Amino acid sequence: MTAAALHHTTTTSNSSSGYTNGTIAAVPVTGDRSERPANVGILAMDIYFPKTCVDQAELEKHDGASTGKYTIGLGQTKMAFVDDREDIHSICLTVVSSLMEKYGVAYTDIGRLEVGTETIVDKSKSVKSVLMQLFAESGNYEVEGIDTTNACYGGTNALFNAINWIESSSWDGRLALVVAGDLAIYSSGSARPTGGAGAVAMLIGPNAPVTIEHGVRHTHMEHLYDFYKPDLSSEFPVVDGALSVASYLKSFDTCYEGYIKKLERKLAVPHANIDEVDYFVGHSPFTKQVQKAVAHISMIDFKRDPTNERYDAVRQAYLDVPVAQSYTDKVMERAFVAVSKEIYRTKAETALYAAKQIGNMYCGSVYGGLASLLSQVSSADLLGKRITLFSYGSGSAASMFSFVVVGDTSTIARHLSIVERLASRVDVPPVDYEKVMELREKTHQLRSYTPVGSLDNLFPGTFYLEHV
Amino acid sequence: MTAAALHHTTTTSNSSSGYTNGTIAAVPVTGDRSERPANVGILAMDIYFPKTCVDQAELEKHDGASTGKYTIGLGQTKMAFVDDREDIHSICLTVVSSLMEKYGVAYTDIGRLEVGTETIVDKSKSVKSVLMQLFAESGNYEVEGIDTTNACYGGTNALFNAINWIESSSWDGRLALVVAGDLAIYSSGSARPTGGAGAVAMLIGPNAPVTIEHGVRHTHMEHLYDFYKPDLSSEFPVVDGALSVASYLKSFDTCYEGYIKKLERKLAVPHANIDEVDYFVGHSPFTKQVQKAVAHISMIDFKRDPTNERYDAVRQAYLDVPVAQSYTDKVMERAFVAVSKEIYRTKAETALYAAKQIGNMYCGSVYGGLASLLSQVSSADLLGKRITLFSYGSGSAASMFSFVVVGDTSTIARHLSIVERLASRVDVPPVDYEKVMELREKTHQLRSYTPVGSLDNLFPGTFYLEHV
Repeated sequence: MTAAALHHTTTTSNSSSGYTNGTIAAVPVTGDRSERPANVGILAMDIYFPKTCVDQAELEKHDGASTGKYTIGLGQTKMAFVDDREDIHSICLTVVSSLMEKYGVAYTDIGRLEVGTETIVDKSKSVKSVLMQLFAESGNYEVEGIDTTNACYGGTNALFNAINWIESSSWDGRLALVVAGDLAIYSSGSARPTGGAGAVAMLIGPNAPVTIEHGVRHTHMEHLYDFYKPDLSSEFPVVDGALSVASYLKSFDTCYEGYIKKLERKLAVPHANIDEVDYFVGHSPFTKQVQKAVAHISMIDFKRDPTNERYDAVRQAYLDVPVAQSYTDKVMERAFVAVSKEIYRTKAETALYAAKQIGNMYCGSVYGGLASLLSQVSSADLLGKRITLFSYGSGSAASMFSFVVVGDTSTIARHLSIVERLASRVDVPPVDYEKVMELREKTHQLRSYTPVGSLDNLFPGTFYLEHV
Repeated sequence: MTAAALHHTTTTSNSSSGYTNGTIAAVPVTGDRSERPANVGILAMDIYFPKTCVDQAELEKHDGASTGKYTIGLGQTKMAFVDDREDIHSICLTVVSSLMEKYGVAYTDIGRLEVGTETIVDKSKSVKSVLMQLFAESGNYEVEGIDTTNACYGGTNALFNAINWIESSSWDGRLALVVAGDLAIYSSGSARPTGGAGAVAMLIGPNAPVTIEHGVRHTHMEHLYDFYKPDLSSEFPVVDGALSVASYLKSFDTCYEGYIKKLERKLAVPHANIDEVDYFVGHSPFTKQVQKAVAHISMIDFKRDPTNERYDAVRQAYLDVPVAQSYTDKVMERAFVAVSKEIYRTKAETALYAAKQIGNMYCGSVYGGLASLLSQVSSADLLGKRITLFSYGSGSAASMFSFVVVGDTSTIARHLSIVERLASRVDVPPVDYEKVMELREKTHQLRSYTPVGSLDNLFPGTFYLEHV
């Protein structure tokens, strides 16, 4: 793709949306910078997903798959997709401009912007540099940060980098933007229903309502080929599904055990377990995988404290069975899925709303989960709560970390409006969805190409490709 | 490229290299982490370049170019290149393992590793994840950071991120590795002699001899298509040479002016100028470009203080001429190259040693410059000196920032030994160099391929591809 001509559809004016915008502004740092700012975290958040989606139950029928294969087996309700009018540049432009406009943030107040993505349309030029178009009018060209990549983990690295910048002596008092998004597209076959598309933008700064928790983060990285994209001319990844599912869970086990031990030390409580976590947000390639992750929370908690009465039903059978056996032992996995059902229902399921309705957004997935939570749970209920995230990118890179809610999240919830916005999408019949996939495959990497997708299939305020 | 089988040649044992290794170890953070560690910067540094190079004067003859076109016009002496035995994975493995071994650093003491590169062989799996192979034996899988990309700027983003991590409350007391490297390969034609290959590794931590200077960094980023890689299946970039040279200089002007103003404020000196900078290290696509950058230092200094007697020779002609005119006015550029010759000779040229001998290492270029300086100037002469760097990545992303030398750099100099190591390379005749370029082009992205390059063309301790 060369210099693409990008336009955007008319934005719905915020003044007509029924509420007044608050504004969030940077506060210039004066005097001594030797002290770190307090409560660094998420000041604002927005999510973009395409207007078009395909119903997974319809897709099951169309594909001749057994009933429930996608809806229950994968735990997916709908899958978002884009036609040839959108690419990684346009969806990131859309989500950043939307956040800035909704929250009334000045482009001059941004000192850092990093993009986490694995949707690579140029091996050299970053998506971040494309986003600098949005800053041109303000005259602010001093914006640090570029792109960061390792499968679905890029957004997490970008988030950590943004927070670290604000806590470092290099911070200049301005705010940071983190963009995490992807187009998840698979070749036709069993992996295709695990696709999705979308991007999340987060505004990071001090005195945030949703603050990062220090001293508990645990990371696990290793050299693996579970999911990768060695064919640079194709949009499709190469996937070893079984290895990827197992690697996710293995990384999860390491991260959760490391995290909970650090939390135990920090809180000085004996046998810390999932009870210390109010909400769990897992990276969701498909939501069933997160249910498995929750089962692994129970496996680790049980291993760490076999006397916990929550595990009465599995104690006898699994007291001496190592967690690793569950990577291949489906009976064991089901037993712990059963015993962790209440944890899943009360702590994890709310965060999976967007993932069920959109599918995988790769880098955006876990942050779409956080957005789902902040959008649906009231600010009063969230106050004082710990939200624990697990980010996994194949290859592999994984981290578990947490936010604590210390302020009012109602503005974020109102601007996200995930349930309402997802309900306003257009269901596209599977046969038309497949035509769009064929179109993308045929026109991928074409030059001097004019996209043919209808502009009616875009939400107001969406950037789109006019010519490539 | 799929899971490549990587091996490495026998390493020359350090015990036979005539000096005893010091060791650098992480110090666990205990107690209150609210204070930032002091003197964060470069503890150790290593550079890797291929054993094979082509002489630019020979290449001029071979290409039928006018004498001096590459050697004087570009300012290049030799160009390093790899055959089909090496790729971005292998050169990064080589430079990291070399640094760790030379300086006696334990893999368990590393808490972060980020790779800056634009040599993309997989759109999803990071080079960082490949480097995790080196950590496997130590059992340390808790290493944050992935890859970061925007043309030649990735190493700088990785460096800033590493420093910020250490200064943040997320720091766990361990050290960070920054890897910056690329294979710079152009299609046959006028850009080909501006190629190169190599990687730099830096160990970042507190109490470093070469410390980052705070409060002076200036960054400029904008949306440009001066150099990019839209053809994902090719190793070659698309280059608008004139635009790229001008964009580099425009970014340079903005960054230098911003930087020198911040330095002026920090040092509380009137009319701060290049006299405050002891050494200048510029990103070098070819060294002539850095000489132009130095000319721009003079343009900005002259604009900021037209009474400076250093500019007597140009005052009358250029007093009212804006710096921007020089982007197209070659007479003006030459006038300022002439008037800045002494600045170039005393402050900039030493740092260009590796760039002249290797060519462009893209992300590694400016750090190869820093390595050249630390390798050639004695520790006593460096002590207390300010080293100012300019990093530019097309697309575009640029920063100017500085290090101050506060400790002994002799160990770093000894381990780098740039002059001696560059002198030990093998000059390959241009006709054979071209055959290698053809081989790379033909075999790029092949699968089930066994490289044919001779292992004699590798330094001891070099990782190489056995099978792809």
